[in-house]
Amino acid sequence: MKSEIEKYFDRLWPLNRSLTGNGNRETLKILSELIDLKINEIPSGTKCFDWTIPPEWNVREAWIKDSKGSKIVDFQKNNLHLLGYSISYKGNTDLETMKKNMYSLPDQPEVIPYLTSYYKRRWGFCVSDSQLNKLKEDTYEINIDSDLNENGTMTIGEAVLKGKTDEEILLSTYICHPSMANNELSGPLVTAFIYKELIKMKHRRYTYKLLFLPETIGAIYYLSINGEHLKEKLAAGYVITCIGDDARFTYKKSRMGDSLADRAALLALEQSGEDYIQEDFFPTGSDERQYCSPGFNLPVGSLMRSRYGKYKEYHTSDDNKEFISFEAMEESVKIYIEIITIMENNFIYENKFPFCEPQLGKRDLYPTLGSQKDTSGYVDAMMWILNLSDGSNDLIEIAKRSKINFNVLMKAAENLLEKDLIRKKVQ
Amino acid sequence: MKSEIEKYFDRLWPLNRSLTGNGNRETLKILSELIDLKINEIPSGTKCFDWTIPPEWNVREAWIKDSKGSKIVDFQKNNLHLLGYSISYKGNTDLETMKKNMYSLPDQPEVIPYLTSYYKRRWGFCVSDSQLNKLKEDTYEINIDSDLNENGTMTIGEAVLKGKTDEEILLSTYICHPSMANNELSGPLVTAFIYKELIKMKHRRYTYKLLFLPETIGAIYYLSINGEHLKEKLAAGYVITCIGDDARFTYKKSRMGDSLADRAALLALEQSGEDYIQEDFFPTGSDERQYCSPGFNLPVGSLMRSRYGKYKEYHTSDDNKEFISFEAMEESVKIYIEIITIMENNFIYENKFPFCEPQLGKRDLYPTLGSQKDTSGYVDAMMWILNLSDGSNDLIEIAKRSKINFNVLMKAAENLLEKDLIRKKVQ
Amino acid sequence: MKSEIEKYFDRLWPLNRSLTGNGNRETLKILSELIDLKINEIPSGTKCFDWTIPPEWNVREAWIKDSKGSKIVDFQKNNLHLLGYSISYKGNTDLETMKKNMYSLPDQPEVIPYLTSYYKRRWGFCVSDSQLNKLKEDTYEINIDSDLNENGTMTIGEAVLKGKTDEEILLSTYICHPSMANNELSGPLVTAFIYKELIKMKHRRYTYKLLFLPETIGAIYYLSINGEHLKEKLAAGYVITCIGDDARFTYKKSRMGDSLADRAALLALEQSGEDYIQEDFFPTGSDERQYCSPGFNLPVGSLMRSRYGKYKEYHTSDDNKEFISFEAMEESVKIYIEIITIMENNFIYENKFPFCEPQLGKRDLYPTLGSQKDTSGYVDAMMWILNLSDGSNDLIEIAKRSKINFNVLMKAAENLLEKDLIRKKVQ
Repeated sequence: MKSEIEKYFDRLWPLNRSLTGNGNRETLKILSELIDLKINEIPSGTKCFDWTIPPEWNVREAWIKDSKGSKIVDFQKNNLHLLGYSISYKGNTDLETMKKNMYSLPDQPEVIPYLTSYYKRRWGFCVSDSQLNKLKEDTYEINIDSDLNENGTMTIGEAVLKGKTDEEILLSTYICHPSMANNELSGPLVTAFIYKELIKMKHRRYTYKLLFLPETIGAIYYLSINGEHLKEKLAAGYVITCIGDDARFTYKKSRMGDSLADRAALLALEQSGEDYIQEDFFPTGSDERQYCSPGFNLPVGSLMRSRYGKYKEYHTSDDNKEFISFEAMEESVKIYIEIITIMENNFIYENKFPFCEPQLGKRDLYPTLGSQKDTSGYVDAMMWILNLSDGSNDLIEIAKRSKINFNVLMKAAENLLEKDLIRKKVQ
Repeated sequence: MKSEIEKYFDRLWPLNRSLTGNGNRETLKILSELIDLKINEIPSGTKCFDWTIPPEWNVREAWIKDSKGSKIVDFQKNNLHLLGYSISYKGNTDLETMKKNMYSLPDQPEVIPYLTSYYKRRWGFCVSDSQLNKLKEDTYEINIDSDLNENGTMTIGEAVLKGKTDEEILLSTYICHPSMANNELSGPLVTAFIYKELIKMKHRRYTYKLLFLPETIGAIYYLSINGEHLKEKLAAGYVITCIGDDARFTYKKSRMGDSLADRAALLALEQSGEDYIQEDFFPTGSDERQYCSPGFNLPVGSLMRSRYGKYKEYHTSDDNKEFISFEAMEESVKIYIEIITIMENNFIYENKFPFCEPQLGKRDLYPTLGSQKDTSGYVDAMMWILNLSDGSNDLIEIAKRSKINFNVLMKAAENLLEKDLIRKKVQ
Repeated sequence: MKSEIEKYFDRLWPLNRSLTGNGNRETLKILSELIDLKINEIPSGTKCFDWTIPPEWNVREAWIKDSKGSKIVDFQKNNLHLLGYSISYKGNTDLETMKKNMYSLPDQPEVIPYLTSYYKRRWGFCVSDSQLNKLKEDTYEINIDSDLNENGTMTIGEAVLKGKTDEEILLSTYICHPSMANNELSGPLVTAFIYKELIKMKHRRYTYKLLFLPETIGAIYYLSINGEHLKEKLAAGYVITCIGDDARFTYKKSRMGDSLADRAALLALEQSGEDYIQEDFFPTGSDERQYCSPGFNLPVGSLMRSRYGKYKEYHTSDDNKEFISFEAMEESVKIYIEIITIMENNFIYENKFPFCEPQLGKRDLYPTLGSQKDTSGYVDAMMWILNLSDGSNDLIEIAKRSKINFNVLMKAAENLLEKDLIRKKVQ
């Protein structure tokens, strides 16, 4: 019984994603079945800050034949075999010359490495080191039939879910990785399935923007258009990546370090009762590099599982379907929804009775029988909210100090609102 | 050889204390032998913030007889048997109906629980669970002869010891608990014996106010009259409760977290060399709930021993004379006096020789023979005071940083004052 | 093969250093072979803040003979035998009377203690406790031939190395300790050899001032003249003392606690990979007592090895050549130079491309082949600098957060400067 996520995974897996090209276009088309995606084509050559949108890359075929005519390496079988952004090349060559354009990982002899050469024109193949070492002296026929079209476009997708306010929450993932699983089909898949949960929400306080971009250049382009708007409107954001295996969660903080994104994510993780890893911001990694560049310094963190650079399958053919877990991806969707629930319900309240406690008993909020046990789970929560709601603490802060679950505090706040004991602070 | 505290304990123990009534009146009358108490009667029905002073409750008798006429439960034997604020009731009833108004603790089958119903009119008895389970089918005669007098009063007591300044230190305890020992005869007793020490002090810098109130409603009433005054004049305060057994001390911080009350109490505990527990403020507990409500946010903490809710005898008939220790109570008085001594002697000094060290040797404050050992216990202390007395650090802060005992620093400061090397900062 | 440091140690060792006198004059003369020292003579009686420069002390001879004419104690053999600043005395005396003026350490019976009586006129001898106890009843001849000249001077030395700016770095050591090794010939020796490294530096940003002073009175005098100037111009300073044995380093922070002196020293120690001790400022110790007095509060810390008061040989004849290590002293010079290198190269940079990352690849700062391993050691460092250089973080802060070695960051900053991606912030 395949999960829905798995079905989409299987369809998206073989596509040749990169910074640009038909693989990306096809990926977004398939994801459009799940999400109301607006797809944009950005012309190659477009300037964005210090960068330029590269030419569009498409591959028709790419292989190496030995002198007997057998295909010993074939892009059809695994699109990692072709160096990303490889230029066209046709010719016969001896082993030594060919090896200069072949890449392998001697430390992991059985895997095909993932390599790209986006901004320097090269051709090349990636193979396992064990295959490379077995190749004999021969005359090899090389055929790479690819396009680098200066008049092409870079394809990006964006979904917008309007909320009651124009404050935004950004979920950003990337679509430039071919045939790898944790990094990176898990990001677009989890993001798409978060969307499916978001549209079920009865009312949304925040406006959600979900971005499906090629890494780095896509985020830079997006910020060149929307950066100033985000500085004004972004409440919180996450880069969704490396979220598909069953390792414990890793949360990488935004550059700010205590943004709403950080506080909500860390509270959800803390309340999960599960072990997790917390990392301070560092300026290598994924698109948080751009969102958290010093000129923008946006409240964008990243909740991951096995993170880039920290697992040996990273950027190789071993980052495949076996490495990931569809149950884990469902859990990933859930915890992102919990984080969002916390943010949606996080308010600063003001106690309308700040001098001594209001009498909860006469409002049926307190047990009438004074006893040695608290008979209501909400009394503590109400006490905490009343005491700390002096206009400076939000519900996340109260949850952290009281160690009371956020959901209990939410319900307690509703009770207090209903009885007119607190009001939402106008911010 | 009974201690004086024990003699008062024995006289106060049998009285039926509650929010109001003759038990409280009698309690304050007995304590007046120790303290110059001003006793106030506040009419039932008086409004204070969101609350109203309840009717005055008095009990003449309360018992249950079985069909043979034997009293099986009798308020005379233990005033915990009657639900606090129980209304009058007379009647014959079968076992099942009677049980609906009987309260016990199945988890602690041998103890009588302490229960009240201050703000909802009920009648009821509290008994041990083992007694409850042994009751046979029978016709029981119930007789509760009590008053809830809307024209009564709530009785409160206050003692004031004037000091050199009108800055105040508040010691607040509560008198509404009947026949329990740690919580709560220990609080009024320790407070009364602190008073006996305070009047011995030759000069007092602070004005002391000692309050004997029913919990919650008493503090709310007091704040409704004196809250604004306290906001202006209160230097520090403590709720004195649960201070009678021989457990290690627990200090619960004020909501501010670093008030003078907190700093002095924690320094005294630290210097005691004994293990102790430190708790951040939480908004359940005793009258610090009112003093530290967000509108007042007063510098009021609470130094306890086994604190409410944390020991199994709490709010039962097992919180009795056996549970407490009169030696421990004397120690409790002592540590409160140490805290007060710290506050009385805590000043910000200003070094009159801030450029390099003043020459202590020529003022006989430094050994004339430079050696490898410090021959005077005060040299270090003087050095610390001179170095940190730049107008921003008080003596408590210097004690914390230097880890030198406060009493040594006090004496060193006196030496420096006498030699005109420092002056008290006018604040 | 003697090290150069050892040769100077051997020449300086026998001189009788004190607050004043020919031993100090000779010491500075010998050090002048290494350093361009400006030597100043300050008249006895000169006022400086609360202090007065004492008379100049010189000793011709000092000994005790027994009745057979044997010298049983002789200043010639070890100048610790004579109490520092001992007045002249000649006479015959019995054992009991003589013992009143003899000092020993019963806890360490084999060592001669180091004692002084700078500001109270006394005569006395210091001997080992075991020698003292062996003395028999006899008539002893005592002869102390010393001068306390009110018309003398106190000798101090200062070297100045001009830098590009008039911001200063102060290295302060003391020359008042006779015939001891860790405390204190190590300080003047290490300071002199730091000077030898400083003059090799091609360009110096800071102006360096190296002070050779008698402890306490020397620093107080210097501050009385230069204190206001230092408040304005001093970037960082260190008291160089107790730096000669092979114990791990101890860094004592300046009173400020996070001054440039503290941050640079602690970073160098952290990067050394060696274990070290970190101590908060305390107002006893050496001349940091004066530099960090509250009126000056200068950024002056102290990097030591076995520090004063913490090793049993301290202030005794056992703090001798055997106790120290000339290799360790060379290492001490090195780490001070590393600290200085950090300060010289510590700047706040401003990222000229704060919106998203600048494209490093097109500037040959980034590998053109996107791979799973970082192929350049500087990419991470450049990323950190670009991300944190928002005008508020200096390179020390970036080193602390990134845990990248300062030298790597320096080189990365040079690359970025050269490619015009960052600029130095004008401060």
